[in-house]
Amino acid sequence: MTTISPENDVVTLINVFTVEPEHQQRLVALLVEATESVMNKRPGYVSANIHRGLDGRHVVNYAQWRSRADFEAMLQDPEARAHMGEVAKLATFAPYLYAVVYSDAASSAMQS
Amino acid sequence: MTTISPENDVVTLINVFTVEPEHQQRLVALLVEATESVMNKRPGYVSANIHRGLDGRHVVNYAQWRSRADFEAMLQDPEARAHMGEVAKLATFAPYLYAVVYSDAASSAMQS
Repeated sequence: MTTISPENDVVTLINVFTVEPEHQQRLVALLVEATESVMNKRPGYVSANIHRGLDGRHVVNYAQWRSRADFEAMLQDPEARAHMGEVAKLATFAPYLYAVVYSDAASSAMQS
Repeated sequence: MTTISPENDVVTLINVFTVEPEHQQRLVALLVEATESVMNKRPGYVSANIHRGLDGRHVVNYAQWRSRADFEAMLQDPEARAHMGEVAKLATFAPYLYAVVYSDAASSAMQS
């Protein structure tokens, strides 16, 4: 399970992919495969969470890394780069790094 | 605390704001204020999580609602619309709704 909190000692990658609806499912599968075969074996990996846009045209990876240096080292990994090349054939993407600065949850909310 | 999991019975709003660096801090403050004064009093609100882009030019709200209908009802709320108008003076934004389809976390990761 992934948690979001300003107290977590992570950097967050939020990567928004834009894709044609007919390729959305394939893109999700590619991102899951990349996570399981490459990303989650890299030093500093904390989590990855793939989100399917209800509009059919977007996919988001919400991922956490121990540090910016760990994330940037991953970007140089040849296997990771090969996966990103596959993804780039299907979608455009906008990856940025973030810090969580504020988190609020309804006290009555049961999330599962 | 917010959790991300395919088992959560929520819809997820991921809203990416693009802003000039000199307005980033003000934008974060506006989004926190909107959450506390309006959003978290609306039916179906589950959570909001404000993320500051390390590049200075982005801010993300990762928010959860009980249902798409609850989210869409909030969009019609006059107070919510007034806050969104304030935000629109500072930033452009790209809000989309998502379902979490996959979540993975390093078994050894301590997140806090």
